[in-house]
Parts: sequence; structure tokens; C-alpha cells
Amino acid sequence: MNLQPPRGTRDFLPVDKIRREYVLGVVEKVFQKYGFDPIETPAFENWEVLAAKGGGGEAVKDEIYYFKDKNDRELGLRFDLTVPVGRVVAANPNISKPFKRYQIGRVWRYDRPQAGRFREFWQADIDTLGSNDPLADAEVLAAAGEAFRELGFKDYTIRINNRKVLDGLMQKAGISDEGWLGIIRSLDKLEKFGKGTVVKELAEKGISKGTVEQLLSMIGMKGGSDVLKKAKAELKGIEVGEKGIEELEQILGYLKAFKAKNIVVDFSLARGLDYYTGAVFEVFIKGGEEFGSVAGGGRYDQLIKAFGGQGLPSTGISLGIERILEVMEKKKMFDKVGNSFTSIFVALVDESIREDAIKIVERLRSEGFNCDINLRKRSLTKQLDYANARGIRYVIIVGSRDIKEKRVTVKDMATGKETSVEIKELAGEISNFI
Amino acid sequence: MNLQPPRGTRDFLPVDKIRREYVLGVVEKVFQKYGFDPIETPAFENWEVLAAKGGGGEAVKDEIYYFKDKNDRELGLRFDLTVPVGRVVAANPNISKPFKRYQIGRVWRYDRPQAGRFREFWQADIDTLGSNDPLADAEVLAAAGEAFRELGFKDYTIRINNRKVLDGLMQKAGISDEGWLGIIRSLDKLEKFGKGTVVKELAEKGISKGTVEQLLSMIGMKGGSDVLKKAKAELKGIEVGEKGIEELEQILGYLKAFKAKNIVVDFSLARGLDYYTGAVFEVFIKGGEEFGSVAGGGRYDQLIKAFGGQGLPSTGISLGIERILEVMEKKKMFDKVGNSFTSIFVALVDESIREDAIKIVERLRSEGFNCDINLRKRSLTKQLDYANARGIRYVIIVGSRDIKEKRVTVKDMATGKETSVEIKELAGEISNFI
Repeated sequence: MNLQPPRGTRDFLPVDKIRREYVLGVVEKVFQKYGFDPIETPAFENWEVLAAKGGGGEAVKDEIYYFKDKNDRELGLRFDLTVPVGRVVAANPNISKPFKRYQIGRVWRYDRPQAGRFREFWQADIDTLGSNDPLADAEVLAAAGEAFRELGFKDYTIRINNRKVLDGLMQKAGISDEGWLGIIRSLDKLEKFGKGTVVKELAEKGISKGTVEQLLSMIGMKGGSDVLKKAKAELKGIEVGEKGIEELEQILGYLKAFKAKNIVVDFSLARGLDYYTGAVFEVFIKGGEEFGSVAGGGRYDQLIKAFGGQGLPSTGISLGIERILEVMEKKKMFDKVGNSFTSIFVALVDESIREDAIKIVERLRSEGFNCDINLRKRSLTKQLDYANARGIRYVIIVGSRDIKEKRVTVKDMATGKETSVEIKELAGEISNFI
Repeated sequence: MNLQPPRGTRDFLPVDKIRREYVLGVVEKVFQKYGFDPIETPAFENWEVLAAKGGGGEAVKDEIYYFKDKNDRELGLRFDLTVPVGRVVAANPNISKPFKRYQIGRVWRYDRPQAGRFREFWQADIDTLGSNDPLADAEVLAAAGEAFRELGFKDYTIRINNRKVLDGLMQKAGISDEGWLGIIRSLDKLEKFGKGTVVKELAEKGISKGTVEQLLSMIGMKGGSDVLKKAKAELKGIEVGEKGIEELEQILGYLKAFKAKNIVVDFSLARGLDYYTGAVFEVFIKGGEEFGSVAGGGRYDQLIKAFGGQGLPSTGISLGIERILEVMEKKKMFDKVGNSFTSIFVALVDESIREDAIKIVERLRSEGFNCDINLRKRSLTKQLDYANARGIRYVIIVGSRDIKEKRVTVKDMATGKETSVEIKELAGEISNFI
């Protein structure tokens, strides 16, 4: 029998699961601090719901786990957490707006598994549905930034752009509505493939070298309010572009009040443009090497329309938990996160004092300590090995002579130090250790 | 478009999701206190893995979500959390034993949806794999009992029996190995359908009235060590039965040392007898009405064999989170659990002081408060309505005059009381409220 988890999925043994819980716990606490409340939705959705996002349609079937239930209902495992919240909001029109919700959970995509890419992975999303205020965009960015800081990242960058600015640029360059999506996609290759490739590709699409140069100079700009000023001059008189710049100005202003850090306006940022309608953002981590994007999002005012409702101005960001964990592993950021939630193991020198040992365990647990007890007949050495293998820091060694003297030995597995402690003072003494 | 979640599944809006998180949080903390560490496994498993439990085979397909991926791999959504841990332990023979793991998550079954039964539901399991010690059985029961106490239940009962005792009884009554499973199933109906039905059903199976009376008198016994004493006499000389009684005696002894409460030996308890090999247990909640079983488990020493490994003595219990939530709702046990994680909403009287308001929010968040701010242009009344609808307890009202005077008004939405507070003392003052 094949005992491995299905292709593209993973098992997480305690060491890894504890790190995962740590990351999700930190992120969740930040989301709550920013006034978001949680929702939960099913792992699978009716197929037509999944097909609705960004006009995905039938093509979505190739990229997801699609199946039929025993009544031939078409279903699919959810591929993100935005579609579910969109459906929930459309199905529950009485939810108070803005609906500030977070959702943390797994999603599934039938990608070709690559190094570091999985078919089952975790996301942590915040979205504010029902506010067109740039303050809502700024707030999700501030929350994302704080989540990365709380996780211990110092070297993250939040890049921000606005779909409307890109629209304005196209308008100025005289590029038709039909043409611009392909062009944005070419421009998106700038960082990866260099200017030469992009100029060539755009020339093939009929854009003159002069226009390309003009677009590139604008798109190459990165910075803060200085960059916005230049872009404002560039886009003067082009309504949609001016609106985009104005929104970015407001967002930057609010982010300053929120004391958000590491914000960079980057006009080359172009993500999911058939879906986003205003601000777009992406969080990057820098290190010895470039770790790439760890979170992304933006404003999407039209999504709920796909579910048959009215448009609902919405904005949000999704944290890619797998990527974050991967970077934190590489940067050795889990040093302070232990390998076990258990901090005490009660070892038995002989079996005759079992019930006394159980009483010690019971007492420690009732004082709030995470405490384990030996459950196999084995030597003290083997018990110490077990505690060590699990990453349990303190071992309380109990023998029949100890019980007579009402004392036990506490061994610190990290330092090897042993201390003799009176049983009645055990809980207090242990608190000093932990 | 059908905006409802797929049949048998549910959406959880914040009020319900917060209760769910509360329950899972309490349970998880107890599991950790008892020395269990978490694992995570994929939502779906290879089909052959799912078919292995209790010799389920092809028939399992009718009761689960079974599907094929695009490479025709046969998969199924997991239907419990025991199969996954069994596979994980078989696949990772080097895991230190005993492997004390907890796993909390959703599982799926293609049941006919009934009132209060769902196709997607949550379980919270602890299992100790690799210990044949009755102390391991006692420990999972003690942990389960504490979880129910910590959730606020006073009226739970932990019923315990032993598969070996039942085997011994059958042996004494001269019933063949082949016949006993059907008979146990008849006996299992005792509580539900009464003695008459059971006697009749067993007579049809060829069991004499005398034997039935003998079985029933034994199976009707419920209690503590007194009951064990009687059963011991009854089963004298029948090896398997004596062994079962001895295990129960040990478990009761350990449970006493653990200060576990509400334990009842109940020889009529017969669950999943093709799967369990020793102690079996079930937790019941009593109320004005009988709420039924909220947790169940037992010792299963043969499961890992189904995955091609050696038998591994194991014991565990699974908490039925849906049933627990349902009972807690009915018993109104969520009074102290709020409707929102957010405790403060900052309302704006006029828009001119936005950035000052943001700074107030930023300060409160940095002090650790979960704080929201108005994100829609709307009247103060509507802002108060919003905070009220979400269940946010305190509203900080900020106007331009307040900002000049460096004061704000704090309104307690529960009492209606308003207090004027200096901005620089806000965090301190709010701590007194919350």
C-alpha cells in the first residue's frame, strides 16, 4: 500500500505543525487587532461558484480538483478564500457593511507540483467588503505589514500600484482598451526579462518605440510621494489616471498615520488585472537572495457581481502561508519555537510508585503545565531519550526513594543540570525554570 | 446561481465561527496540557488508505466523497482522523513511541443529511500510539473529561467498557465467535428498544431465554469498582474476560489518581466492535433532555496492521465538535463568548479629523486592543448601529472639537454609559473597562 500522502500534499509531524500553528497564531492575532472577524466556509463549493471568478469558466476545471457527488452535483475544492467570501456576502445581503472578515485555511489547486509548490496549501486572508474608502486599502496593508513584523521580518517591502494609473498610462499612450491587457502582461515581464524583450514584444503588438520608452520611464519609477508627484504631472488631464494617483496619495497618507513601514510605490506592479479595479499590492521579502512574493491583493469592486449581486467595493490581501514558512525556515526564524508543546516529562525509575507519579502529573497539569508521563515499561535512559527526541525540555525523575523523601529530581535536558526539589514546591520551582 | 453552500455543508458567519474557535481553543489547550502534540494531514487520502480501516473496502465508497484526480488517481476526502494518523505512523516508523498526537480538523462523510447531521464536520482527536498500558487509556479519558469540564459542562458521564469483557461473556454463554457480533448488536439495542425486543431478537438467533437473561443481568450492570467486583466473580476462569476486568480495574485506579470525575462502568456499551480490541468509551451529556454521545473511542491494537505494518497498541478518543457546539448552544453556554473579537470601534463625528482618529486607533492596537475604525461615510447614529450589530462593546466617539480638547467620548454599548476621557490616558482607561 502507498503510505505517502497523495501527490502534491504533505503530512506535518509535530515539529512542522507547531511552526505552522505558530505562524497562523501570530497572523490571526494581528488580524483581530485590526478589527477583522473570522468566517468559515466549506472545503468544496458548487462548481458554478468557482467558475464565476474573473470569468474563469470551464478553463478553471483544469486547475482545480473538480468532482461530482453521488447525486451528480458538480463540485470543486476551493482554490482561494476570496470566492467563498464573495459567495457568502452575496448569499447574506443583511451582513453589516463594511464586512471585515478574516479567513485562514487550506485551498487546493491542481498545479503541476514543482519544488516548493503544493496542491494543498494554506492561505490567510483579510478582506474589507463594502467600503470604497482608500482607508480600507491602507488598513489591510497596515495589518499585513504588522503581521510580517510580528513574525520577525525586518526586510519586507510592501509594493503598491493602482490599476487606474495603468489605465491612464495606456490612455495617454493611445493604446486601445482591447490591446492594453496584453501590453500590461508584456510590461509585467520587465523585471524578469529586461527592457530589450519588452520593447521587442510590444513592437510586435504595434506599439512604437517612442511610446514604449514613454511607458517604460513611468513604469520604472519606484519610491514614495516624490514618485507620485512626478506621475501626477505625467497623467495631468487624464481623468482615470488622476483618480488612481489621488487614491495612492490618500493610501500613503493613511499608511503614515498607521505608522506602516517599508511602503514602495511601484508602477510596474501588475497583478491579476482582469480582476482588480483599483489599488494592487504585493509584499516581498528580501534576504541574501530574493525570496519573492509572500502576500498579494488589491481592490476588487466587481467580484460580487459575478455572483449575481450588485458590485460591492472591496479590498483585501492574502498571505501565502507556505511561502512564509519556507522563508522563515531558510532564515532560521523558528529558533524560539520549540519542537513540542510539552515542557515536562515525568520519568519513572520504578513502577511501584506509579500512582504517586500520576498525582504529580495531575498537580502540574492543574497548575497549567503541559506535562507528559512515561507510558511504556522502559529504562530511565530510554525515557530520557524519548523526552529528548520529542524536544521536551524538563524531565522530572521519580523513584520510590524520592517518594519516601517527598522529593524529585528535575533535569534540564538542554543543560544537563539536575536539581532536587521538594514535591510540594514542584509547581513553584518549575515556574522558575520555564 | 445557487449561492448556498453545497448540500450537507455550512457557512459560519463570525458569531458562529467565534464560538467554534472558542470550543476548539479550549479543547486544544487541554490536549496540550496532557502532553499531546499536533499533526496535520491532507484533506484527501489515496482511496486504498481509506478503504483499509476495519476492512471497509469498496463499501466505504458509498459513504465518502470519492473522486479521481486528472491522472486517474483514486482519492477520497478523509472521513475521520484515525485513518490519517494510522497511515502517518505506518509511513514514519522512526517516530518516537508512544506517539501522543492530537489532530483537530474537518472530515467528510456522504451521509444522508438529517437534522443536525452534516456532510462536513469537525472532530478533535487525541490518540496514544505505541503503548499497551492501561494508563494510556486512563489518560485519554482524563483529558477528555477535563476538556468537557473546561468547556463548562458539569453533567457529562464517561462510560467505559472493555471488548474483552464482552468476549468473556459470550464465551461463558457458549456463543460462537461467528455469532457474537450479531448478538452484541442486538444487545446494543437494549437501551433503545427495551428487554422484550432484545430477548425476541436473540431467540430468533437461537439463544435460549436462560442465556439471554444471564447476559442481560450482566450487561445491565452500571457503576464503579463494585460492579467490577461482581463481574469478576461472574467471569471467573474465563481468561479473556478476567483480563478485560483487570484492565478496567487498572484504568479506574489511574482515573482516580488523575482526579477524573463522572466515570461509569457500563457493560452495555458496545461500539465498533470489529475495530476496537480492549477498552471502549463514550462521553454523554445529560440535560433536561438526553443529548447523547459527544465523544467516543477506545483501544485499537490492530489498526496499523491494515497499513501493512506491525500491530501497534493504540488508544484514543474523538470529540464530536458539532454535537458539542449544538449542546452548548441549547444550554446557552456561550454567554461569555462575545459576538466579535473586536472590542473597540472608533466612530468619527466629522471627516476632517480622520488622521487624528487613525492615530488613536494605531495607539490602541499597539497596546494590544482589537480595534476597528469607521470606513464608510455615514452618520454617527449609523456608526453606532454598525458597532452594535457586530457586537463591539465600546465605541470611541471622535469629533474635531474633541481633538482640540484632546479628549474623546467612550460609549459602553451594553449600558449606554458615556465617559469623557483624555486621549493620552485612553489606553489605560480602556483597560479598566475591558
